[in-house]
This record gives sequence, C-alpha cells and structure tokens, in this order.
Amino acid sequence: MVGYSFMGKAHTQAYRDVSYYFDTPATPVLKAIAGRNEDKVKDAAEKLGFESYETDWRKLIERDDIDVVDIVTPNLSHAEIAIAAAKAGKHVICEKPLAMSVNEAQAMLKAVEEAGVIHMISHNYRFAPAVQYAKQLIAEGKLGKIHHFRGVYLQDWLLDPKAPIAWRMKKEMSGYGTHGDIAAHSIDLARFLVGEINEVAGLLKTFVHERPLEGSPDKMETVDVDDASAFIAQFDNGAMGVFEASRFAGGNRNGNRFEINGEKGSIKWDLENLNNLHVYFDDDAPGQQGFRLINCTEAEHPYAGAYWPSGHILGYEHTFINLIHDLIESVANGKNPTPNFKDGVQNQKVLEAVAEASEKKSWVSIES
Amino acid sequence: MVGYSFMGKAHTQAYRDVSYYFDTPATPVLKAIAGRNEDKVKDAAEKLGFESYETDWRKLIERDDIDVVDIVTPNLSHAEIAIAAAKAGKHVICEKPLAMSVNEAQAMLKAVEEAGVIHMISHNYRFAPAVQYAKQLIAEGKLGKIHHFRGVYLQDWLLDPKAPIAWRMKKEMSGYGTHGDIAAHSIDLARFLVGEINEVAGLLKTFVHERPLEGSPDKMETVDVDDASAFIAQFDNGAMGVFEASRFAGGNRNGNRFEINGEKGSIKWDLENLNNLHVYFDDDAPGQQGFRLINCTEAEHPYAGAYWPSGHILGYEHTFINLIHDLIESVANGKNPTPNFKDGVQNQKVLEAVAEASEKKSWVSIES
Amino acid sequence: MVGYSFMGKAHTQAYRDVSYYFDTPATPVLKAIAGRNEDKVKDAAEKLGFESYETDWRKLIERDDIDVVDIVTPNLSHAEIAIAAAKAGKHVICEKPLAMSVNEAQAMLKAVEEAGVIHMISHNYRFAPAVQYAKQLIAEGKLGKIHHFRGVYLQDWLLDPKAPIAWRMKKEMSGYGTHGDIAAHSIDLARFLVGEINEVAGLLKTFVHERPLEGSPDKMETVDVDDASAFIAQFDNGAMGVFEASRFAGGNRNGNRFEINGEKGSIKWDLENLNNLHVYFDDDAPGQQGFRLINCTEAEHPYAGAYWPSGHILGYEHTFINLIHDLIESVANGKNPTPNFKDGVQNQKVLEAVAEASEKKSWVSIES
Amino acid sequence: MVGYSFMGKAHTQAYRDVSYYFDTPATPVLKAIAGRNEDKVKDAAEKLGFESYETDWRKLIERDDIDVVDIVTPNLSHAEIAIAAAKAGKHVICEKPLAMSVNEAQAMLKAVEEAGVIHMISHNYRFAPAVQYAKQLIAEGKLGKIHHFRGVYLQDWLLDPKAPIAWRMKKEMSGYGTHGDIAAHSIDLARFLVGEINEVAGLLKTFVHERPLEGSPDKMETVDVDDASAFIAQFDNGAMGVFEASRFAGGNRNGNRFEINGEKGSIKWDLENLNNLHVYFDDDAPGQQGFRLINCTEAEHPYAGAYWPSGHILGYEHTFINLIHDLIESVANGKNPTPNFKDGVQNQKVLEAVAEASEKKSWVSIES
Repeated sequence: MVGYSFMGKAHTQAYRDVSYYFDTPATPVLKAIAGRNEDKVKDAAEKLGFESYETDWRKLIERDDIDVVDIVTPNLSHAEIAIAAAKAGKHVICEKPLAMSVNEAQAMLKAVEEAGVIHMISHNYRFAPAVQYAKQLIAEGKLGKIHHFRGVYLQDWLLDPKAPIAWRMKKEMSGYGTHGDIAAHSIDLARFLVGEINEVAGLLKTFVHERPLEGSPDKMETVDVDDASAFIAQFDNGAMGVFEASRFAGGNRNGNRFEINGEKGSIKWDLENLNNLHVYFDDDAPGQQGFRLINCTEAEHPYAGAYWPSGHILGYEHTFINLIHDLIESVANGKNPTPNFKDGVQNQKVLEAVAEASEKKSWVSIES
Repeated sequence: MVGYSFMGKAHTQAYRDVSYYFDTPATPVLKAIAGRNEDKVKDAAEKLGFESYETDWRKLIERDDIDVVDIVTPNLSHAEIAIAAAKAGKHVICEKPLAMSVNEAQAMLKAVEEAGVIHMISHNYRFAPAVQYAKQLIAEGKLGKIHHFRGVYLQDWLLDPKAPIAWRMKKEMSGYGTHGDIAAHSIDLARFLVGEINEVAGLLKTFVHERPLEGSPDKMETVDVDDASAFIAQFDNGAMGVFEASRFAGGNRNGNRFEINGEKGSIKWDLENLNNLHVYFDDDAPGQQGFRLINCTEAEHPYAGAYWPSGHILGYEHTFINLIHDLIESVANGKNPTPNFKDGVQNQKVLEAVAEASEKKSWVSIES
Repeated sequence: MVGYSFMGKAHTQAYRDVSYYFDTPATPVLKAIAGRNEDKVKDAAEKLGFESYETDWRKLIERDDIDVVDIVTPNLSHAEIAIAAAKAGKHVICEKPLAMSVNEAQAMLKAVEEAGVIHMISHNYRFAPAVQYAKQLIAEGKLGKIHHFRGVYLQDWLLDPKAPIAWRMKKEMSGYGTHGDIAAHSIDLARFLVGEINEVAGLLKTFVHERPLEGSPDKMETVDVDDASAFIAQFDNGAMGVFEASRFAGGNRNGNRFEINGEKGSIKWDLENLNNLHVYFDDDAPGQQGFRLINCTEAEHPYAGAYWPSGHILGYEHTFINLIHDLIESVANGKNPTPNFKDGVQNQKVLEAVAEASEKKSWVSIES
Repeated sequence: MVGYSFMGKAHTQAYRDVSYYFDTPATPVLKAIAGRNEDKVKDAAEKLGFESYETDWRKLIERDDIDVVDIVTPNLSHAEIAIAAAKAGKHVICEKPLAMSVNEAQAMLKAVEEAGVIHMISHNYRFAPAVQYAKQLIAEGKLGKIHHFRGVYLQDWLLDPKAPIAWRMKKEMSGYGTHGDIAAHSIDLARFLVGEINEVAGLLKTFVHERPLEGSPDKMETVDVDDASAFIAQFDNGAMGVFEASRFAGGNRNGNRFEINGEKGSIKWDLENLNNLHVYFDDDAPGQQGFRLINCTEAEHPYAGAYWPSGHILGYEHTFINLIHDLIESVANGKNPTPNFKDGVQNQKVLEAVAEASEKKSWVSIES
C-alpha cells in the first residue's frame, strides 16, 4: 500500500476481513506500506498491521513479495506510482479519481494494459449490496428503459468558512475540489447503473476563495478548486441525468443519493442508510403501488449473504470488503474486475468535460 | 371564473371556505362561471355552486356584479382574457404559467398596471404553511447566506406511452409541456425563497413523440412539447440552483420537493407530505445536530393557526385557501398581493431562457 | 348541533363541504346550534354559519326543522341529549366516547333503537382513505389471519406540569382522561380492522396530580383522571393487541399510529401523515420484499376519488367529510351507518374493562 | 469460545477487529473453540481463525492459555459452562438470556463473584453509538424525568407455519421462545436507559403449535414456547413501559425499536437503521420543535470516533466490537463491565415475572 490516512485505513480493514466473510481463492497478506515520513509510516504500519514499511514507494514496487499495489495517496501521485507499479508487473488498485487529467488517466490505462496486470479503481459505493441489487434489477429489465438519473453527493465539512485548507482544496494536489472527490462517485454510479454519458452542461463554483492554513488561523491560502459542481447530462441510451455535488450542504455529512426512473419502475438510494433500497414497480396492482423499502441484507442481495442474517445491517466498510473480494477473485482468475482503469478514464472524461463546459458556458461532448 | 375542471374546482373550493377559516374583510360570492360549451358550463355552475353561467367570457367581464375574474383556462387564452378583464376594471387572478411567452406575459402585466387593478398568479405551493415558515426562517437569517437550491417536481402520469394526448402536450395550447406546467412551480418556489435567477443552462427533452387521441387508441398525434426539463441556475445572490421536472418519474405522483442549503442551516420540503418541514441548524450543539422534522401545524406557522390544533394536518386544497385569503385581503386593502403578474413575467423569463439555452446549447442570461 | 368549539368547527366544516365533493342524496342545511351562553352561541352561529341558535338544547330538539342532532358537548351530557333527541325522533350523531359509562352507553343505544332513528358515533379516523383501504385489504384476505395489532395514540399537550386543568381532566365531566379521549380512537381502529376484544390487562396512570386553573396559576385543582393508559388485549379471532395512549409523549402532537401483522402481510399507519399507508406483502418476490409507501390519494382508495388527482393530499378535516357523507347516505337510505351506537357501547366496554383491570391488577373479560 | 454458528461468528469478528479500531490495553488471541462434533468444530476453528479446537468444553476451560471463556451455546448449557469456567478462574462472557431460570442465573452470578472473575452478558445492542448517546442524554438530564418507555422487537422468520422447528422453539433448550430471545434485548435496553422494573402484567402467546423437523416436512414437533410476548411494566422511577416481541411481524426482519418520552424530551431508535437517533427537545423554540434525525457517527457519539468520519455508517457487527472493547478494558483493569451477570439476573427476573403474570393473569412484582 502506498499512502495511509483515511483511505489507507478503509482498504486495510477490507484486506483484514475479506477472507473472514468470503471463501476467497487467496488470503491477502499485508506485506508493506510506503510513506515518505518514516515516523508516520512506521506508526501506520504498526497500527494497520503491515509487516514492514518503506519510505520510498519505488522500493516497495521493487519487492518480490508484493503482488498487488494499492494506491491511496493524493491524486497528484496516482499516475506515477500506478505506471511504475504496472511496469514492475504488479497488479494495481488505485483510489479515485484515477488521475489529474484525462491524459494522465489514459497513460495509466495504457501502462496496465501493456503490462497485462490486473487493475481496479476504488469506487467502493458500487459495492453496497443495495446498489448491486439495483444493478441487477436494471439488468433484468425490471425498470425498463431508463429515462432519468439524478444523483447528488452532499457533504458539509467546508460549510464553516474558517475550516482550514487541505490538499483536497489545492488544484496542484487534487485536480478538482468537490467535483473530482465526490461528483466522481455519482458519475461512477450513473455509469454503472445507466450507461455512458455523451454530453454535459455544467457549473463548477467556489463559495469560499480563501481558507486559513491548519493551525494558523491568520495565514490565508487560496482555494483554487470548486466547492460545488452541478451538471446536466445526456446518456447514450437516451436517458437524461442531473448531478450535483457540494461540501456546503449543511446537515448532509455524507449524502450520496441517487434516483433512477425507468419506464417500468424507479429506484432510490442514499449512502447514509446504505442498506435500504427504495424500489417502485409500475406493474404493482393499482392502489397498491408505492416505493418498497427493501433492507438489502438478504441472501438474494449480492454480497449480503456472506455476512449476517436478514435485517442485521452492514456499514460503510463493507463496501470496501466487497470490492476487495472482487479484486482477489480477479487476481486469482486473471480476469479484470470492474470498475477498472477503463472506468477511471471514462469517469475522468466526464469530470473534465463538465469543467470545460463550465468554463466555456456551453455543452461539451464526451467520447466513449 | 373563466374555465372549470381541475383548477376550477380547487379555486372554487377556496372561495367557498376562506371565510370559514379566516376572518376576511369580505366574503367571496360565486357570481358566474364562463365556458364555451353550454351543457358543460351549466353543469359546472351547478356542481361548483356558481349563481349563473356565461358561454362567452366576454359577457362575464362586462357584468357589473363581477369584481374579480379568475382565469383557469388553458394557457393559450390567459393573455386575452386577463387583458380584457383588466381593461374592464376587474381584478384578475390567473393560473400559471402566466402566458405563452414573455412578450404575452409583459403585455398582461402592462394591462393590469395601467388599469390599476389587483393582480395575482396562482402559484399555490408558496402558501403551504411549511413553505411560508421556510421563507420566514430565511428572511430572519436563520439559514444565513444561501448557497444551494435544488428543486425537483416529479410526476408519473405520462409514464405509459399509450396515455392519451391532452392540451398540456400541445405547444399551441400550453406553450411548454412539463416545463411550463410544473417546473414553473419550482421556479416560483426558488424565486420566493432564494431570489432572482440571472443565468441558466438547461435541457428540454421529449421521451414519447406520439400519443393516441383520447378514446382513439389508433389515431396518433404528435407531442411537440417537452416531457421533462432540467436546468442549472445562477442566482443574483450568489447561490446556485439545480432544477428538474418530469412526468416520467414512476412512483412520484406529485413530487414537488426542494432543498435549500445556507451557511447556517438547511431546509427540505416535499409536497406529498406538505405539512412537514425538515430544518437543520448548524449551530445546534455538536452531537445533537440533525434535520428536525417539524409538523407545521402550529400557531407559529403562517396561516396554520386558522385551522386546527397542532398535529391535525392540512391538505392540498388549503394552499389555495391561503392564497385566496391573500387575494381577498389585497382586494380589500388595494395593495397588490404576491405572487402577482410581475412574478409571472419573471417566471416566464426563466422558462423561456431555459428553453433557449436547451436549443442553443449554451448558458442564457435573464434580466430582472 | 349541540355544543361548539373544536369538534363543532370540524363537524360544521364537514356539513359545509360534503356536497361539494360528493354527489350526496341530500344537502345538509345548518339550521341551528345550541349552547348555554347566549353571547358565545350567537357568536358561534355566526362564525360557523348556522341560521339560528338556541340557549337550551331542549328547544333545539323540539324544532320541526331539525332532522339530525349532532352532539359535540363534553362527555357528561352526551347521554341526556342523545336520549332526548332520539325520543323526539331525531337522527343522532354523537362525539366519542359515547358516554360516561357502559350503562349510560347502553341506555343511549336502547333509546335510538327504540326510536328507530339513525345513529352514529364520530370516530372519524376510520374515514381516512388509507384506513379504509387497510380495511379493504384485510377484508379481501390480503393480510391473512391477523396476529398482531399495536396501536399508540401519543400527544404531548400536557407535558408541561403547569398546563392548566380543563374539562378533559375532570372525571365528572369526561369519565376518563387520555383513556376515553384518545385510547378510544385506537380501540375503534382495532375493532374496525381486526375485530372484537374479549380480554384485557392494563394500567391507567396519572403523572401530574394537580394543575392550576386556567388564568389562575396559583389555584391548583386535582386531576382525577389518567394521563396515560396502556393495555394488552386478546381478540376473538386469536390476535393479540398492545395499546398505549398518552398526553405526555413529547414531540408527538397527534401521534395516532397503528401496525397490524397478519400471516400474509402487514400494515402501518400514522395520523400525522394520514395519506400514507405502509403495506408489506409476504408473497412479494424474495429480495423485493419491503413495506410499500402508498399515498392513498388514488381512485382505488375509498373516498379519495371524490377529491383531487393522485398525489394531492388530504388533511384532517376530510376524515369528517367522509364520515358525514356516510351519515347523509344513511339518513337518506334509512340504513344505519358504522360506526354507530353499538360500536360506542362496545368501545365503552373495552374502556371500562381496562380501567377495571388497572384497578384490580388482573385480566378482565369483555362480552360482545 | 464454546459454541459457534451465528453468535460465534459475530463474537469472533469482534475479537479480530477490536484492536484495529481501538487502542486496547491487550489484543485478543483466538486460542481455542469447543464443540461436540469434531468435524464441525474443526471446520469452525479454521473458518473463524481459532488456533485450536476441543470437542469437550471442559478441556477448554482447563487450558492454561485461556484467559476468557466466551459462551455462545444454546441457553440450556450456559449455567454449567459459566460456573465451571468461573471455578477454573476464567473470565466469562455469556450470550443472553443468561440462563434457563432466575435460580440458574443467580447460581451463575454467585459463581463468578466467588471466583472474582470478570463477567459480562452479551447484550450488544446497548453498544450502538446511538443507544450510548441516548444514555448520555438521559444521564445528563436532557430528557428530564422519564414517563414512558415503549419497546418492540419484531421479527418475521416464523411467519411461515411450515418453517422448521429449531432449538430456539424448544423449551428444554431455550427456556422461552421469542420472549427470552428478543424481548430480553428490549428489557436490557429499558433497564440500561430508564431503570429497574418492579411490576409487570403480560401475555405469552403461541400462534403455531406444531412445526416440522428440519428436512422432514411430514414429521411434526410441538412448539412449547411462546411465539410472541407483550407486557406492561412499572419502573422504580415512576415511568411506565410497554413491551412487545414477536417472530410473526411480517416485514420486520430485525425490528428492535424503542421510544422514550421524558418531561423535557423524547428519543426514538430502530436497530434496522442503528446509526440514527431521533431526538426531540421540548425547549427548542416554538415553531422549530421536532424530532432531530441525528446520524450518530460523529466524534461526540460514544465509540463512533474509533471508526470513520461523520456520515460513514456502522453496521450490526460494530455493536459487538464495542462490547468486546469494554470486555478487554475490564479484563485489563480488573473492573467489571456492564452489562454483567447482575444485569443478566435482573433481566431473567423480568422475563420470569412476565411469564408468571401471563399464566396467573395478574400483575407480578419484581425485586431488584
């Protein structure tokens, strides 16, 4: 693993527990973690349970005892590490967004494909059983042709204008602000559930243009990324989409929500109650039609059977356990999982097109 | 009243009951109703309780015993009737959208202003006590500066591609489809609660291009208006808005919902549970923060005190009773109510700008 | 009408509007209202729209122009008025609970049956379309054999120990406190939906034993009725019931809620969102099972078709309009409506058995 | 660990992960698991990650490398194992209900106290951060004096009368049916949050009296325990309680819900959305009062800070991780955790009093 902090903790937890719940073809071993600051990485290795640590990620990817490299660093360094890891013949899993730009993302995809390694992008919310079940219902035609996707991802941790600046608010580190961080998740859900987006009009907006440095309330730094993004989209299959992401939506700690309306039914989901799927079937008997509140903890719901009996809910971390399950299956089978770097490239194209549309004040097309 | 059917029934009910609940300065008398088909208008007069009827609305506006003309006809005829009524010195209340175009709407505004009559547009959803209370909280600064408005108005009565065509799907009768019919309500709520919109990018979309005539399933007619509309907006005060309206959103019978996020708090509302307001205050104690579910049936909630004790909910029709209350107060006081034709004009500008933006594939500015 | 205030206003509203919404065989005329205080009753007559008033209810029931007597006085006087009205050949509708005791209630039933007049008890919550639809589903066997009824009726207007005393807290005026006032509604819903109760164990409890007189905060009066009641019940059909009512349940303004579980499905309802019925069908496909949120505003839902299109919700007052609709039909047809005085007697038996069980600390049987 | 299956898996998961999330004074090592069937226990040891296994629990408690014995067997054997383990000087954690009877439970308590070992009972639902925060609010007086506790625990896995019999439906194995299995959880929550119960009236009911043997649909066995239980309770502090538990409540997979009403506020919680706490404060400003939906995933909420950022929800298993955290702290500190065998005894007294009250058809007192 390269990097630690929030995503490092989440991924590691998944490696720890995946073979407890699932009958995996292999059991992950936490060989090594890399980070530049020796004290911090040593501490992380101990806390997270890695056998060893490196202060240079290049050393880590040279090691013979490493099969999979998991990249959880800030966006700035995804490409360099992923490309080097692929060249070293390591399978690669990378946090989202894949890169700083479409060009970078494409270079990463090229590298993993040329190296013939397994590659995955860590869009974990796909892996909530309720979302997987939504996918299954759509694939089975239970919703019919899709007309609408509307997805919001609302957070509120920047609502306070005095909240300190962080790498996620610096363009050179993150590429985008809210847009790349969380709109990217909504885009992934839309692509997973509805299909490819071919055209967008949008708006990236910054509400607070300066923020203090952490610990130095008087030293202000410029916020050069978006605080919120919104866009309208056309899908290849004729559906229309409406997207919005913000870190200024008070009362929404982690409000990743979507609704899908098809000609035969509708679906609603909300990350803050991630076990619940609301499903409407238009062919239910008249008078008895309404959204069903399905607690997706049953044997019929993908991945859910590996855990607890019906009604015993899962949490945030299980999305990662399910994702890592698929990664391990893929490494064992030699078949690439989804979402992978192709998804990362396509996601990046949508992100970039929205940013361009916001700047040009016009619609922008996207190629698949 | 000119016209009958759904809106005629709703407005009439309000005239019947307004003085039962409120201590109004005058009590409405249902003098006459106009419609072209004598059998139908006669029947409507009887059913709704009008004293008389006319088969030509021109006769109705000539009558001395008429003080207020209420226009509930299809959009096509709003302008002609309203202008004539104003010229005849009648106060005018008109259904939304005000007109077929901005030009027409402006002519209507000019007419009522020149005639010096009271004018009102029937955006009834403003008048839900919960919405009025939202307005009050915003006006008092309880939400601080507003960052976000997101409004959807979702219905599903056109989901079936075999549902017959109606005047609301004919451009010459209605101007727009879903856009003018229900996006107009979201626009009104946004203008009421947040302020003026000055720029939009949007999309009008038709999913089903032909529908059968009522009663003749084999005779198809062209649908030449939108089935759904979506747009992103910039407000004068720096807020951003995201809007969507559809008649293809299965499971949403009348899903007029909005969320507002300000720097100090947030609000959520949903017409299908119109008594409930969800309010988040960012200065609630840490650990105790969360959306409050307020049942707006208490003395503190505008208009609610006129009805029942706390917890005894109101329905759809009470929005009209409250609206008509304001109309009667205005007629008695000689002070124009809101929303009025000025609001109608501004709303029409937004509708038109979105349609233009959809066609031009670019952002379009709006003047206030 | 004998009496005014809250229930007087609600009943009168129903008489005013019933023939606007429904095609009734007769149209109610508000002939006269009776009350002891001339100033107050005169004012009430004017406000509510009665043609005349009487200061002695005996005069009112002597009048030839009165067909139906509606009793909305405190419980103490229900029996005397109802019996006299029946003897005078008037049809009678009476507020709940029917009487101060089972004996009184039975005397009332005897009087109306001997007089051959139509009689009704005003348990209005049965008349919410969602409740009527619940009844229909149960009658059609959609829930199978019923196992469980759980009903709470929670209010909070006495939470403040300094809230003044009122007639509803004086045994000589009301018979019971919370128990007769609102547990009676839950009992009616249980009897309507599940069937007769034949045995109960229960508890009546008073939290605040003294309250000030209205306007005299220092003058304390004894509360000699219950503040809350709870009981467990056995139904004739083998179901079990759990009931609770309180005026001390903070945050519940008017929380009349029930849940029913049968061998094939379940139902949940809540008065504060009275249009919504939550229905679970156990034969829905595995993985797709869950409570459906049905907005009971559709043509398929009893009474709802008389009002507005789907998704345009009704309020508290419409339960009375529907009830009065049935009363008028009954008066016209000469067939007694439900709920009537027989239901009132049976309800009173359950109330009384619970009070006895609470005092004796044992189960008490009830005869049907 | 003695026993495996559902609870074995849940407890083991907690031992695996507790030191990943928390900075525990010791790290659990999964030394050995005991079960009678060698094939099964061997398989369980491998799957769950125990270092070794025993086919006789007596051998397990003799081993020097065992510090804590965790009992997850059917209720029948809790007492024997716990008493033996205590005598062997092992700390003991036992699944609920503690025993088959109050006598047995008291013997267990005596044994652990005499041995001076740490003891705990596995009422895990107390350990949801939302429940712990509810406790904190009550302890701080934020709800004032408590008037009401109402708790239901509704499941539906026995709704099908053909569902096979299991040990949980055999009196000799489990003591009670639904009552001991899940009403016991509601009792624990009530005791934790409100206080001791001193008197009950109740009903234990069996809906289906015979069920087939697993795999032999024609071979019927008698169900000699309750399918549902309900009771009314008096608390020492003057509050009243209403409890209900059932395995016949269709649509409720794991519906462990409670509501508490105090003189200053109210609380609602539901296990199927266990991160959410609904809190009402009666001193919120008039017009702004309503239940707050608090997502208890913040640093202020007990235990939650050990996991993820705000809004990233926890699941069922985290209640066990938190419980095991307290167990480890206790073993390290030598101070007994709660809930412990004293709580188990008191819980058993309530269970037994309800069963007696149901049989005697009267109220039954309980000593603390």
